[in-house]
Amino acid sequence: MIRTVTETPRVWAAELPAHPGEQVRLQGWLHRHRALKSVSFLILRDRTGLAQVVCAAPEELEAAAALSEETVLEVTGTASANPQAPGGVELTGPVIRVLSSRAEPAPFELYRPVVPATLPVILDHAPVALRHPRLRAPHEIAAASVAGFRDALDALEFTEIHTPKLVGSATESGANVFSVDYFGRRAYLAQSPQFFKQMMVGVFERVYETGPVFRAEPSDTGRHLAQYTSLDAELGFVEDHHDVMAVLRGALVGMVERVRARAGAACALLEVELPEVPERIPEIHFADAQELLAAHSGRDPRGEPDLAPVDERWLSEWAVREYGSEFLFVTGYPMAKRPFYTHAEPGRPQYSNSFDLLFRGLELVTGGQRLHRYEDYLAALAARGESAEPYAGYLQAFQHGMPPHGGFALGLERWVARLVGAENIRLATLFPRDLNRLAP
Amino acid sequence: MIRTVTETPRVWAAELPAHPGEQVRLQGWLHRHRALKSVSFLILRDRTGLAQVVCAAPEELEAAAALSEETVLEVTGTASANPQAPGGVELTGPVIRVLSSRAEPAPFELYRPVVPATLPVILDHAPVALRHPRLRAPHEIAAASVAGFRDALDALEFTEIHTPKLVGSATESGANVFSVDYFGRRAYLAQSPQFFKQMMVGVFERVYETGPVFRAEPSDTGRHLAQYTSLDAELGFVEDHHDVMAVLRGALVGMVERVRARAGAACALLEVELPEVPERIPEIHFADAQELLAAHSGRDPRGEPDLAPVDERWLSEWAVREYGSEFLFVTGYPMAKRPFYTHAEPGRPQYSNSFDLLFRGLELVTGGQRLHRYEDYLAALAARGESAEPYAGYLQAFQHGMPPHGGFALGLERWVARLVGAENIRLATLFPRDLNRLAP
Repeated sequence: MIRTVTETPRVWAAELPAHPGEQVRLQGWLHRHRALKSVSFLILRDRTGLAQVVCAAPEELEAAAALSEETVLEVTGTASANPQAPGGVELTGPVIRVLSSRAEPAPFELYRPVVPATLPVILDHAPVALRHPRLRAPHEIAAASVAGFRDALDALEFTEIHTPKLVGSATESGANVFSVDYFGRRAYLAQSPQFFKQMMVGVFERVYETGPVFRAEPSDTGRHLAQYTSLDAELGFVEDHHDVMAVLRGALVGMVERVRARAGAACALLEVELPEVPERIPEIHFADAQELLAAHSGRDPRGEPDLAPVDERWLSEWAVREYGSEFLFVTGYPMAKRPFYTHAEPGRPQYSNSFDLLFRGLELVTGGQRLHRYEDYLAALAARGESAEPYAGYLQAFQHGMPPHGGFALGLERWVARLVGAENIRLATLFPRDLNRLAP
Repeated sequence: MIRTVTETPRVWAAELPAHPGEQVRLQGWLHRHRALKSVSFLILRDRTGLAQVVCAAPEELEAAAALSEETVLEVTGTASANPQAPGGVELTGPVIRVLSSRAEPAPFELYRPVVPATLPVILDHAPVALRHPRLRAPHEIAAASVAGFRDALDALEFTEIHTPKLVGSATESGANVFSVDYFGRRAYLAQSPQFFKQMMVGVFERVYETGPVFRAEPSDTGRHLAQYTSLDAELGFVEDHHDVMAVLRGALVGMVERVRARAGAACALLEVELPEVPERIPEIHFADAQELLAAHSGRDPRGEPDLAPVDERWLSEWAVREYGSEFLFVTGYPMAKRPFYTHAEPGRPQYSNSFDLLFRGLELVTGGQRLHRYEDYLAALAARGESAEPYAGYLQAFQHGMPPHGGFALGLERWVARLVGAENIRLATLFPRDLNRLAP
């Protein structure tokens, strides 16, 4: 694809061991520069990994002497077998061409196996810090995850949609929205594509979107971001939320498979253990979960309308013990804690046809069946003391015939953070935005 | 995937002709209701197409009588061969179950082959109007296009990224940005992922993003949107802009192939002629284009720093005549009209290593080689009288070593509008946002 000045082909660093004896060309960043008495080792980094370049002749040493780490180089030379080199092959007899400015020292040493920097230093210097293989790896896992999500849903005939991030009313959750000066009027940044994806079930039956959502989250925790990437799906003609859960399971399978196939090196570097997605993810009703917690966890959460983080952790561990599953569906959350468009549980109207998916102790996905009859929407809004007027556009879909449907939303950064064991979700976000951070 | 109450399998409308003689179950919207004297025809619409249901027995006619168009139905019956039915098979002996509220009349008749509504009516009623097969089809083409774009770049080892849409300074183009109240500070909606994708070349070498961008475009034309979907790519270790153009060509091939494979019915319905992407897309330098226009078009644009729309149309037609290509690269645009990060043309510094791709008379893509040396950025900003300070985050990447690189941005809605021959880009946008429109 890339034209070359010389005829020597570019070889990826990770593939150097496959070319012993050949004349090759490497391109990348000077990851580490180790000058010994009579020899200099240049470790070159490209998107695939590291390769060692040996400078021994006087003109090679002279060329290497001036090079600072992170300077971008093109190095042509011979791939030479050396059992002591990483991968068993190194590049000798190098001719070095400098492609960038002379690089200034990075804010921390990028070649250290463990990142020698605090989170603020990392985030303040993200354009450079992300070059550290351990800091880059989560984003390779993220990219593969999203691709796997789309693969799985494409195979189920879902249609990808692109919906507005600028909306006219702050209706969906009311609080924590960003307001925008929209040609002199007030607009808001969408907190989710919820309404749009539901409306589009009326058009495409099955839709997904992978895009940014915005929360003016005033709390500065390790779990919250002002912008994150939401993997949203919605499908029509369901019987209830179990059909949605089956699609979600398929999406998870696609994500794990693609991560395994495309981000294997990143997983190996971070020692990620990919989860098994069971044929049938275990499921417990909210009411049963409360009974279980009361009987065994040492806490009695009965009467509370939601699960506390400590309860989620306990249930997650219980699912591992009981079913060998790192995933657990908790279904039937009380209607009181779910949004107005939630479908109640037939026969037990205080509960809902909704679910959360717990993964390794944390809620990863929220979803459920939605109301689909126009009159049910009017009733639900009236019951909450809300006017239907701000919802006029959304309600059009239901006035004109909508099938039973449901969907879910999965937070990409949260998924990646769980996979790589990051305590702070910012380590799974290229350029996090939060209460205090708007740059770089 | 979908559990069913009955054991009868759901059949897609488009697949009904493959099941003659079988008991089948259809689900969809009542697209059209034609009541004759002794028989009623129900045309059911699902995401794949239309199917005819025949009601003849008294109880069938009675069940059908109350049904309004757009009501969602489940119909079980026998797939019966009938040469006069669409596709040669219709559903007879129907048992009808109503799945939705009784639908109110749509704002226009959705079953008319040509959309019997004006653009404002369509946009005001998008949740329903998009159900018209001709209005839905562009979005099926859009979904396939984006998938093809990603396929092509994934195959070239690009990494998908997700970048902030909230930025701290309105630096990139200055004008036409939306401002956001960000926890009491001022933030802006990103007009493009330009700076982020460049920075991420330093991490992943090759990146792409498919996401929303925002322009506070004060002009209300058929070509501009306040939010659109930008297909962005950026790659390192290029010799010049021609390497970028080669990647763009590959992306276009992927897009056209995937549209052909996955949106064939939509293309057929709209009589879309998919373009051939030539092995080598013809290319003309800006200076040569001006000479050509002066000599042949009846206009003399020499001395002007950009091409007028009429010139783009003429050049596009010229490329068809001369090369049989619906695509034409115009390269070397004057530096004066390109952003500060643009790389000049070696030896002719008034021109740039940039390009536009014209497609069917319009600019579809803009791209080029970028500066990659820190000192060049400082000089470029100084030459424009700009302080480097607001660019501090961005410039970090160049301080710490960046390879020669370039990229491009393709507007998804513009591509789809060209393909389907839509005069107004809003017909290629699910819920357009513009000077006057913020809902539905």
